Amino acid sequence: MSDPRDPKTSVPQRLRSVSDYVRGDVRSLAAYSTGEQQPGFVKLNTNECAYPPSPHVREALAKIADESLRLYPDPTSRHLREIAAATYGVRPEQIIAGNGSDDCLTIVYRTFLGHGDSVGCPWPSYGLYDTLAGIQGAKVLHVDYRRSARRWDLPDQLAHTGARLTLVANPNNPSSTLTPVSQLRRIADDLDGVLVVDEAYVDFALGTDPAASMLPHLDAHPNVIVLRSFSKSYSLAGARLGLLFAAEPLVAEMNKVKDSYNVNVITQALGGAALQDRAHHAQVIARTLAERARLESELTALGWSWPDAVGNFLLCQVGRRALEIYHALRDARILVRYWDTPELNQAVRVTVGTPDQNTALLDALRKLM
Amino acid sequence: MSDPRDPKTSVPQRLRSVSDYVRGDVRSLAAYSTGEQQPGFVKLNTNECAYPPSPHVREALAKIADESLRLYPDPTSRHLREIAAATYGVRPEQIIAGNGSDDCLTIVYRTFLGHGDSVGCPWPSYGLYDTLAGIQGAKVLHVDYRRSARRWDLPDQLAHTGARLTLVANPNNPSSTLTPVSQLRRIADDLDGVLVVDEAYVDFALGTDPAASMLPHLDAHPNVIVLRSFSKSYSLAGARLGLLFAAEPLVAEMNKVKDSYNVNVITQALGGAALQDRAHHAQVIARTLAERARLESELTALGWSWPDAVGNFLLCQVGRRALEIYHALRDARILVRYWDTPELNQAVRVTVGTPDQNTALLDALRKLM
Repeated sequence: MSDPRDPKTSVPQRLRSVSDYVRGDVRSLAAYSTGEQQPGFVKLNTNECAYPPSPHVREALAKIADESLRLYPDPTSRHLREIAAATYGVRPEQIIAGNGSDDCLTIVYRTFLGHGDSVGCPWPSYGLYDTLAGIQGAKVLHVDYRRSARRWDLPDQLAHTGARLTLVANPNNPSSTLTPVSQLRRIADDLDGVLVVDEAYVDFALGTDPAASMLPHLDAHPNVIVLRSFSKSYSLAGARLGLLFAAEPLVAEMNKVKDSYNVNVITQALGGAALQDRAHHAQVIARTLAERARLESELTALGWSWPDAVGNFLLCQVGRRALEIYHALRDARILVRYWDTPELNQAVRVTVGTPDQNTALLDALRKLM
Repeated sequence: MSDPRDPKTSVPQRLRSVSDYVRGDVRSLAAYSTGEQQPGFVKLNTNECAYPPSPHVREALAKIADESLRLYPDPTSRHLREIAAATYGVRPEQIIAGNGSDDCLTIVYRTFLGHGDSVGCPWPSYGLYDTLAGIQGAKVLHVDYRRSARRWDLPDQLAHTGARLTLVANPNNPSSTLTPVSQLRRIADDLDGVLVVDEAYVDFALGTDPAASMLPHLDAHPNVIVLRSFSKSYSLAGARLGLLFAAEPLVAEMNKVKDSYNVNVITQALGGAALQDRAHHAQVIARTLAERARLESELTALGWSWPDAVGNFLLCQVGRRALEIYHALRDARILVRYWDTPELNQAVRVTVGTPDQNTALLDALRKLM
């Protein structure tokens, strides 16, 4: 690269700080940091599903034709949305498919938030909510969870922050706790704004509580958006697919904002195949919940605790040794998630892995504790 | 959906117009309209490549493991960027991979444009530049091409619109014409802002003019961003992949804005395989240019004309019958592109297809003319 401070280049004076053209909101941002991706490690740090996707997904992958690759994909993901509508009991017009639910979140932020508007969300929660607000030039209003040893309770005051857009991850990340749908419905009614219920992990919660999702109540709440992810219970984090559900008038506005061809043809096909294999999906959830029960039992024996978990992960409250434990596990080639923030620096978040992975984790911890 | 005007629903008064929460910029937007996707038609309307992707792409697709699907992709597309850097003679740190070059454009807009800022571009050009400005709440400043029968010339005044971000598609779409790189370099030097050179179609131009790309001059222009697409010469429109090239300081800022996992694991692999098969790429371009020459010869015999074309498409100036021709071809199951705007409504844009597709087009036109 030519050095802009080098007088030998032909760069005009005013270009000496080309980053001056970058929006101030962006210049002052720290980049969002994703969980570590370390090949060869036992990855219990980013809450992917422990089990492979449906064999139907592999069949769909094998059927992708050169012609499908060559031509633009259906910009509306029509066939996928029809399958999703049939699966979830909604209409295709209530759905937008996204390049991961992160893309769905971006679509939501760009639709509803102008510079200086506010986003409300409980805290601690998914860090991307804050990052996206920064990118959009919006302010973040946090309402702290009321935390006890076994519960994270959502304060009703979340309905009264004045934010134009309010987000709740349910189950919450990183706590793996569930807010009752009845409370979310009350918040939606009380809000003067839009409520996003991010149900990335809800399929695991539905395994034990069939009433855990907001989705059946969509028609009663025209200001509610529900997000689902294929990165967790459908084992398709690598393929990037999320679904957004909302009332048709909101969907129509959000469709203006999404990138035209936001979901590639392969992911559209894999997502449809995954949705249609209900038996595999149910089995993955059952196996995950069984392994979670074993992990919980063994971690309890080690003296660990966590808030009551409904997702495929546990936010283990391990006290002052959290960072030490994180590093010791890392040395044993096991990745868990640690955050160096006052609210979370006495915890590690552990994804429920395969039986072998969980055994490896427990063995490492027994040596350590 | 419950009808918000229905007094029987429990929706509070203020939610009767939930779309009030939508940003004004978005409410007033018309959605960007993509080219028609009609199965069973000869598609000469969206400038996809006529030929299939490299066989290496299919091999890469067959090698995608369940494990790759299950885990999050590399958020930085590192391996793909390394291959691209070696291919294009730049450093990996000068590259961002996007979910199509549309995603790259979105990243650029979000990095540089605040509400009320301006985008400058010549007109007519790629309509998405205007759509994205609308989404971002930015104004568009058009500078008209100086058009003659065979040339579309870019006015130097493009450097002096005062826009924070200036975009030039080179080759231009829909005209298939080329602006000399020497002029773009002059504009980049004169601009008080960032210049995007969108080289979606440049591989076809490079087939006859090795100096058609801005990319070799990136190091001399810290305010220039070059975009490349895999939807055209690499025959991967369905997989969604674009590359953005710029100086490291700009890349670092833009990386803050992109969705973390914006390119799925499959597309990363297919893109790398496509880049590494140089022989296939060269052959696709040679075949496309040979077919373009035949199409040009036959269309000339029919009395048609177009500005000197360097891309895989021709903007045929057909006069007042343009709409009639569009419909007649459509009745013959051949799609070409028509725009109902004063600047373009006497033209149809025709993608160079396979020999059979071009023959079908010519046969249909001979019946018609």
